[in-house]
Amino acid sequence: MQENLPKFDSVFTIDCVIFGFDEGELKILLIERNEEPFKGWWALPGYYVEQEESIDHGAGRILYELTGLRDIYMEQLYTFGDVDRHPQGRVITVAYFAMIRLNGQKELKPVNTYARKAFWHPVNELPKLAYDHTKIFERSLEKIRRKISYQPIAFELLPEKFTLTQLQHLYELILNTKLDKRNFRKKMLNYGILKELDEKQRGVSYRAATLYKFDKRKYARLFQKELSFNK
Amino acid sequence: MQENLPKFDSVFTIDCVIFGFDEGELKILLIERNEEPFKGWWALPGYYVEQEESIDHGAGRILYELTGLRDIYMEQLYTFGDVDRHPQGRVITVAYFAMIRLNGQKELKPVNTYARKAFWHPVNELPKLAYDHTKIFERSLEKIRRKISYQPIAFELLPEKFTLTQLQHLYELILNTKLDKRNFRKKMLNYGILKELDEKQRGVSYRAATLYKFDKRKYARLFQKELSFNK
Repeated sequence: MQENLPKFDSVFTIDCVIFGFDEGELKILLIERNEEPFKGWWALPGYYVEQEESIDHGAGRILYELTGLRDIYMEQLYTFGDVDRHPQGRVITVAYFAMIRLNGQKELKPVNTYARKAFWHPVNELPKLAYDHTKIFERSLEKIRRKISYQPIAFELLPEKFTLTQLQHLYELILNTKLDKRNFRKKMLNYGILKELDEKQRGVSYRAATLYKFDKRKYARLFQKELSFNK
Repeated sequence: MQENLPKFDSVFTIDCVIFGFDEGELKILLIERNEEPFKGWWALPGYYVEQEESIDHGAGRILYELTGLRDIYMEQLYTFGDVDRHPQGRVITVAYFAMIRLNGQKELKPVNTYARKAFWHPVNELPKLAYDHTKIFERSLEKIRRKISYQPIAFELLPEKFTLTQLQHLYELILNTKLDKRNFRKKMLNYGILKELDEKQRGVSYRAATLYKFDKRKYARLFQKELSFNK
């Protein structure tokens, strides 16, 4: 019979992997740490969960405090609980991830001084990150790679109107591989979730391509169908 | 600057959702709790993670201690961290899940006395479970519903040789819906991961159906292709 919780010296944290797509590059949001351990290192935005908040709430609060970003829909990625992942003791971290559209934004303003600064960094030239954050980042990249092959998540990263070339380029960046143009277009158009617009790219020196929009209603239906297995 | 970890009164647990398929029914593994709180209630097999073990190790150890099951490959499902999910304090739980084949097994033997007994229970008539375990179970069911539409995970639940009717019946149970027989067969055979055997069902009073086996090599290739997006 057990009347009280056992006492362990263990602490929870949240780490956020926020992907952004901008200027033809896939980026993630990093902070420069202002606290020991790893003071001065680059890291994923992350901090302790408070005793009196749910982990979902903590994820939103921590992202806001460290980067100034608000109201980002984050999904839980994975929980990392190796014994030696933190130099000061037992810390289990719940990683969350999100994908957002960037608009030329480079740096963000942390609200709290745990972070000296917050900035977008291209994923293909990441520095060594604090703790096991490189491993967390790699796992999140695997997750979006897997997800992109059965859910059109890439649309969350693109501007509202985009060309098929931009869409393919984003897939190539995420999958880190060259794709066949004809197959890619065929597959994408077959999903039936792209709306062709009566509008072309502007301000380009080459032949302007047709712009597309993502049809959210059809996407929702497609996903429903997928789940019901009746297609 | 921070030299030590903050002190919180928080504890980690693991809860395991183990699905099994047997006698035409989808089941999960429950224990009868032998400790307060919720003494005498039915619950998912779950307990505290030790200070000096990784959460993956903890998951395997706890499942073994509470049910006697060993060497089950479990995947992390989700981490549940609402403030009030445990009546005695702040407890965050990492849920793991697995799917296994049953062979008429009804009851298992717990190694540790935290569990009075461990047994397989049909999912369509679950009792009220301890803590937020009903919610954890529901989330895991959603997960396998989603997964079954893009990965042939159902094969982990079936016996080595099975009929297409058995396969469809399992899908129907997991998705909780009737499927069209012709569409289902077409889709399944199109995957190219079924090996038709030169063998029929035995011991049935109706017309014996052809048996199939799951082709693991082809499945691995299919999954690779899916990821590469080049199909």
